Amino acid sequence: MALFKHESMYYNQSAKLAIYAEGEFGKSSKTAEGVIRYGKNPVVAVIDSRYSGKTVRDVTNIQSDVPIVGSVSDSLALLPDALLLGSAWNGGELPAHWRPDILTAIASGLDIINGLHDFLADDAEISSAAKKHESKLLDVRRPPDHLPIASGLALKVPAYVVLTVGSDCSVGKMTVSLELNKVAQTRGKTSKFIATGQTGIMIVGQGIAIDRVIGDFMAGATEQMVVESGLHDYVFVEGQGSLVHPGFSGVTLALLHGSCPQAMVMVHNPSRTKIKGTEIPIPSYRRLIQIYEDMSLCMRPAKVVAVALNTTGMDEDTARGAIAQAERETGLPATDAVRYGAENIFDAIVAYQENQS
Amino acid sequence: MALFKHESMYYNQSAKLAIYAEGEFGKSSKTAEGVIRYGKNPVVAVIDSRYSGKTVRDVTNIQSDVPIVGSVSDSLALLPDALLLGSAWNGGELPAHWRPDILTAIASGLDIINGLHDFLADDAEISSAAKKHESKLLDVRRPPDHLPIASGLALKVPAYVVLTVGSDCSVGKMTVSLELNKVAQTRGKTSKFIATGQTGIMIVGQGIAIDRVIGDFMAGATEQMVVESGLHDYVFVEGQGSLVHPGFSGVTLALLHGSCPQAMVMVHNPSRTKIKGTEIPIPSYRRLIQIYEDMSLCMRPAKVVAVALNTTGMDEDTARGAIAQAERETGLPATDAVRYGAENIFDAIVAYQENQS
Repeated sequence: MALFKHESMYYNQSAKLAIYAEGEFGKSSKTAEGVIRYGKNPVVAVIDSRYSGKTVRDVTNIQSDVPIVGSVSDSLALLPDALLLGSAWNGGELPAHWRPDILTAIASGLDIINGLHDFLADDAEISSAAKKHESKLLDVRRPPDHLPIASGLALKVPAYVVLTVGSDCSVGKMTVSLELNKVAQTRGKTSKFIATGQTGIMIVGQGIAIDRVIGDFMAGATEQMVVESGLHDYVFVEGQGSLVHPGFSGVTLALLHGSCPQAMVMVHNPSRTKIKGTEIPIPSYRRLIQIYEDMSLCMRPAKVVAVALNTTGMDEDTARGAIAQAERETGLPATDAVRYGAENIFDAIVAYQENQS
Repeated sequence: MALFKHESMYYNQSAKLAIYAEGEFGKSSKTAEGVIRYGKNPVVAVIDSRYSGKTVRDVTNIQSDVPIVGSVSDSLALLPDALLLGSAWNGGELPAHWRPDILTAIASGLDIINGLHDFLADDAEISSAAKKHESKLLDVRRPPDHLPIASGLALKVPAYVVLTVGSDCSVGKMTVSLELNKVAQTRGKTSKFIATGQTGIMIVGQGIAIDRVIGDFMAGATEQMVVESGLHDYVFVEGQGSLVHPGFSGVTLALLHGSCPQAMVMVHNPSRTKIKGTEIPIPSYRRLIQIYEDMSLCMRPAKVVAVALNTTGMDEDTARGAIAQAERETGLPATDAVRYGAENIFDAIVAYQENQS
């Protein structure tokens, strides 16, 4: 089995970013929001002509004064080093209307950071422009070569492995894993967040987008990242998709069997009743928990120990009500890790861990 | 969502094949054996120097007089049109010792049919030789462009969809699906076998190797093949991997959620006690059945209606004993579809179908 080192740092983390979210900011811009909230790179501007003149705080629940500008050209006055493409599209093809804006950025000397399935370096027009203007194209979803097939090696890792799992895609699994990683370190533990998707990779500067990996090697890529994560008390693996989303369930199961978690955190958006892009109703919490725990068994029994809700857009009472309902239905602690912090989720992990040993 | 047509015919099915299985025939040559047993192309020779002078019948349980020869050069006297690479390797990289033999075949004017993850057309030395000698390189695992994300469209297909599922990889799921397809047609039904792996594609001349598709599109590719299968009484989808194999479970789940079967057939090799390439014990029949049925629920409830055993290498008594044990443990009909035919498995499908309607 060939060992590999995944790309260790995708980009200089002091480079200043303009984040491109034209027509999408606050709507389907989870990449933009994740990078603003958790990324190390300074963000100098968000680009969305609908909100020109406003700030990030005005449009999202992120407490940030980063200005929103109307175009790539308008962002140049703020001296960005790179344009980060900040909208995630199911399917991941390059939307036609992005092309002129990307070419403008390249002509202005900016590097481009891209998380789409379509790679900019493989696009003749864009790559030739980048070459001419000495602009770097960073396709963060490009997987490394020579990935292994999983065989259960993650079971041998001494760290306590925690995977976020979901009722659906795009519910906030990455965010919960990042918040848990913060809490662990605040508590004096050593820990590592393992990025498995484009936004996570942009935030921490390393990782592999498992949804872009060839089927046979998805679990192997996950396993290898866990095996190579180093000696830590905790490893927080960013989950992807959902075992009940027909489009993404295979990716989700590869993450579960590749990472071999001891504990899982169930992430859900209570405003969602149907699985994204389908007419399939989202199952109950208890059914979801049963499915994930059952599917963990062939590797190592893993329990769902807490529920993390994404209550974005809900008022305080509604959010509290949804949390209370999740606790009632599951008998587990629940919270919104962004609104209220992930302290009690981390406590639930530790309590379960102590109970096991 | 972009529609696509998968490659409709990979090769002229009257072309004569020499099958390359050097050092592997009868051992890890499931591609070779599948093509000899079920393929439409005439096979003029198998190449494996260990068995030079023998026939296929001498080395395998296939009733075939195809001669085994000692080298690519020796096969030329039998006038093959193409060399088919007949060993499947986990990981799918081109073994170094194959290269000179492939180059010899190309220099002799043969086309090459390749099912590895590594594509010959992307190999500089091989593709330049092929160009020089006007030899075609057929990389059957290369997926089509522009695959969709699955959303449950297969639920709308009028055909009765049957998926083979397994206790492990390489147990004979393709074979069982092909045998069922034969029985259905013998019974006067219209039916289609959907190839999801390299050997199946080589046999029927179309299909998509799902294990070679990018994670996000595996279920979508499966769904699209089912949707585009035409109007049939039955669609038999070739399963891949196993929900309990850590390396391949993601591919398996994508097939289950992409194809939305009504019925499943459990395939197992009773000589196998551990999951291939791992130290993980194979779960009981009952546990396996429960896992597959449970994971079908988010799309459409599907029952395992029969068990198909691969008793290759077992004597008659041992094989009959294993079949009786499978029937006892599951309460379902069981058989070896190659030794005894798939009649009773097809009967079980029809009985379950009639019971449902």
